[in-house]
Amino acid sequence: MSGIFISFEGPDGAGKTTALNALVPLLKEHTNKEIVESREPGGSEIAEQIRKIILAVHDEKMDDRTEALLYAAARRQHVIDVIRPTLAANKVLLSDRFVDSSIAYQGGGREIGTKEVAEINDFAIDGTIPDLTVYFDISPEIGLSRIRKDHEGAMDRLEQEALSFHQRVHDSYLDLLAANPDRIKSINADQKPEKVVSDALDVIIKRFPNVFNGGK
Amino acid sequence: MSGIFISFEGPDGAGKTTALNALVPLLKEHTNKEIVESREPGGSEIAEQIRKIILAVHDEKMDDRTEALLYAAARRQHVIDVIRPTLAANKVLLSDRFVDSSIAYQGGGREIGTKEVAEINDFAIDGTIPDLTVYFDISPEIGLSRIRKDHEGAMDRLEQEALSFHQRVHDSYLDLLAANPDRIKSINADQKPEKVVSDALDVIIKRFPNVFNGGK
Repeated sequence: MSGIFISFEGPDGAGKTTALNALVPLLKEHTNKEIVESREPGGSEIAEQIRKIILAVHDEKMDDRTEALLYAAARRQHVIDVIRPTLAANKVLLSDRFVDSSIAYQGGGREIGTKEVAEINDFAIDGTIPDLTVYFDISPEIGLSRIRKDHEGAMDRLEQEALSFHQRVHDSYLDLLAANPDRIKSINADQKPEKVVSDALDVIIKRFPNVFNGGK
Repeated sequence: MSGIFISFEGPDGAGKTTALNALVPLLKEHTNKEIVESREPGGSEIAEQIRKIILAVHDEKMDDRTEALLYAAARRQHVIDVIRPTLAANKVLLSDRFVDSSIAYQGGGREIGTKEVAEINDFAIDGTIPDLTVYFDISPEIGLSRIRKDHEGAMDRLEQEALSFHQRVHDSYLDLLAANPDRIKSINADQKPEKVVSDALDVIIKRFPNVFNGGK
C-alpha cells in the first residue's frame, strides 16, 4: 500500500463535511497524487444498501448492537471495494468518517462500550487504519445548536438524540485523541469556516510534506 | 428467562428443515408450552431486510467478512425481537440455524477463522445461547448429492460452493460438537426421514423430560 489514507472525524455540527468540500480543491492544488473522496456509512454498492437499512425508519426499533454490526459490515465493504484499491493505486483516500465514528457514537454515545465496538471493527477493517485522522472538535452544546439551525424540522434519527448522547460522543472522541496522539490531530471547529479549512490543510501538509508540498 | 431455546443445525442437504416441519406437530403433542418457530437469517422485519442483502446477487462481490457481520446483525435483531421475548414468556423457541451456522459456514467454510466469527457473534447474542442444539449430521458428499437432486438448476449462492467448502463446514460442526458435548446433540441424518424425526424427538424429550412428557 503506497497511497495515503486520511479520515475526517467529529461530532455532529462540527462543520466537517462543509469543511471537506472546501478543503479538497485546496489539497488538489498541493499535490500531484490523485485524490479520491468517500464517506461512511456507504462508499460502495453493498455499503449503500446497508446504509439505507441503518437510516430507515422501521416498524420495530433497531437494536443498538444491530446498528453497530451494520456499520461494521458497511465499513468492511468500503475497505474492500474502495479504500484498499485506492491505496494500492498510490492515490490519496479521504474518508468522511471511519472507525472512530463507530467507537464514539455506538460505543460511547449509545453506551455499548468502546472496547466492544472497537473489537467488531477490528474484525471489519483487519489492519486498514488511517495514516492520519483530522478531528474537528466542537463542544456538544455548540454542535447541537448548529444542527438545529441548519436542519430545523428535518433532523435525522441520530441528530435527534439528546444532549447527553452528544456529550458522551464528544468524551469518547477526546479519549480516542488521547490514546492515539500520533494518528489523530485535533483542530478547533469553533472558528470561522475559512480558518477551520486552513487549519485542516496545515495539519495535512505538516504530516505529509513530501506529498502536499505546501503550495506550488 | 424461563422458556426453552432449541436450535437446529447441520450442513446443507441434511434434511434439517424438512425434519423440522414433521417434528413440530409431534413436539406440540408432547407439551403444554406454546412453541414458536423461527429461522435464520431472518425472523424479524429488520433481520429479513438484512437477509435480502445477504442473499441477493450484487454487481460487486460481497466480501466474506461483510457477510459474517451481516449475519451477526440479523441474528442480533432476531435475539432482541423474537428469541428473548419468547423465552421471557415461558415458551419454547425453535430456531432453524443459529450461531453455530455462522461459525461453521463463515468461520470454517469461508476460512475467516472460527474464533474470529465466534467473537463477533458473542457481541451479537450477548449471552443468549441455546439450551439444546440438535445437530443433523450428514457427510458432505451425501449432503451435496441431495441438494443437487432436490434443486437441480436452482442452487442458491451458498449451495453452489464446492465440495471442499462443505467439507470444511462439516469439520467445523464436528469441532463445535466436540467442544460443546452438553449443549449439542448429534443425530444421524443419513437415515429414513421418519427415523431422523423420531431421533430428534427422542433427543429433545430426553433433555427436557419435565416439559416434553414423552407422550400424553
